[in-house]
Amino acid sequence: MENYDAVVKLIVEALQANLTTDKKDIAEEIPVGISNRHIHLSQADLNQLFGEGYQLTKIKELSQPGQYACKEMVTVCGPNGAIEKVRVLGPVRNKTQVEILEGDCYKLGVTTLTKLSGDLQGTRGITIIGSKGSVQTTEGLIVAQRHIHMTTEDAKHFGVYDGQVVSIQINSLRGGIYNNVVIRANDTSALECHIDTEEANAMKVDSLTKIKLIK
Amino acid sequence: MENYDAVVKLIVEALQANLTTDKKDIAEEIPVGISNRHIHLSQADLNQLFGEGYQLTKIKELSQPGQYACKEMVTVCGPNGAIEKVRVLGPVRNKTQVEILEGDCYKLGVTTLTKLSGDLQGTRGITIIGSKGSVQTTEGLIVAQRHIHMTTEDAKHFGVYDGQVVSIQINSLRGGIYNNVVIRANDTSALECHIDTEEANAMKVDSLTKIKLIK
Repeated sequence: MENYDAVVKLIVEALQANLTTDKKDIAEEIPVGISNRHIHLSQADLNQLFGEGYQLTKIKELSQPGQYACKEMVTVCGPNGAIEKVRVLGPVRNKTQVEILEGDCYKLGVTTLTKLSGDLQGTRGITIIGSKGSVQTTEGLIVAQRHIHMTTEDAKHFGVYDGQVVSIQINSLRGGIYNNVVIRANDTSALECHIDTEEANAMKVDSLTKIKLIK
Repeated sequence: MENYDAVVKLIVEALQANLTTDKKDIAEEIPVGISNRHIHLSQADLNQLFGEGYQLTKIKELSQPGQYACKEMVTVCGPNGAIEKVRVLGPVRNKTQVEILEGDCYKLGVTTLTKLSGDLQGTRGITIIGSKGSVQTTEGLIVAQRHIHMTTEDAKHFGVYDGQVVSIQINSLRGGIYNNVVIRANDTSALECHIDTEEANAMKVDSLTKIKLIK
């Protein structure tokens, strides 16, 4: 028992590191959605990849109203390599957008910008392969910036506004704080914080983890 | 220019989120080492995998004195899948230890504990395939807990002790704070914070990024 004090000290420190939000209001916790790499297609690119007039096949509703995962998958190809089985999300959008992980950049041999979905200015394109053809896009390859979807009502509740940059705190075994999380508030959103699989793995977050918003 | 105030507010917030350590003492910054999945082998397992009396082939010195990357690679196999080209690090150790990424667990079909290197109690084994044979280990599969190597002199400088749990702050575009980082102080270490590739990617850290220790 000669190490008793040292052990107690270590345990207290570990608890302090993990439980700094012990006093948090449970109502402030936000569910988390974890995104793997995926693609949103324009109808023109969908036609090119899967055939003229092709319609996406919904297989699963996503948490954001109107959004869904599709049966269709594509291959994304860069100068150094390809990533197969990249899931298409529906419905079709005005512009094609490919959302990859930071780690995918090495495999593809590209550098990307960290951008909010829909903000494609300055981004590069990539080659996409479907069952009937391929497309070389001129923009739209991004690593998604982490963000929190919410209604304007939620935004009032949390005291934040659409576009505000906040932080999130995660109290897991590998927990911590992510900065530069953007609030996306409108009247068609469900409350959910979106991070990608690398961000989730780095803090050992799963679909049951709740996060806390920090202003 | 009607959005001028809103734009200024957004920029100020983004800067505040990123630059909260503007006043940091530059001498407090710590270099970062990013680890991909890798394996340390016992001589018995090395013999089984590559042939009796096999000696590792050093190809690159690592930052920690006496540690090196080897030419040899193995395949790691779990119930759901295999990961090829896992780099062997030398020299041989008393016990074989396989350090994978959290994301590898899904591919292999296993769950692991987040552990400090060398602390294998309670961990599970895995199948390892070499050029001359395979080994089914009974323990040693871990996701490495992030840690900071330093000398006891460094520890005095930072006001920390071996085994202490601290946090690290990263000021990148996707920056934030990781909690539960363990100090590993002894007289044969070089000052370096070790995180894995998912942790690096999640905060857009590269080998030039400096991190700040937070107690």
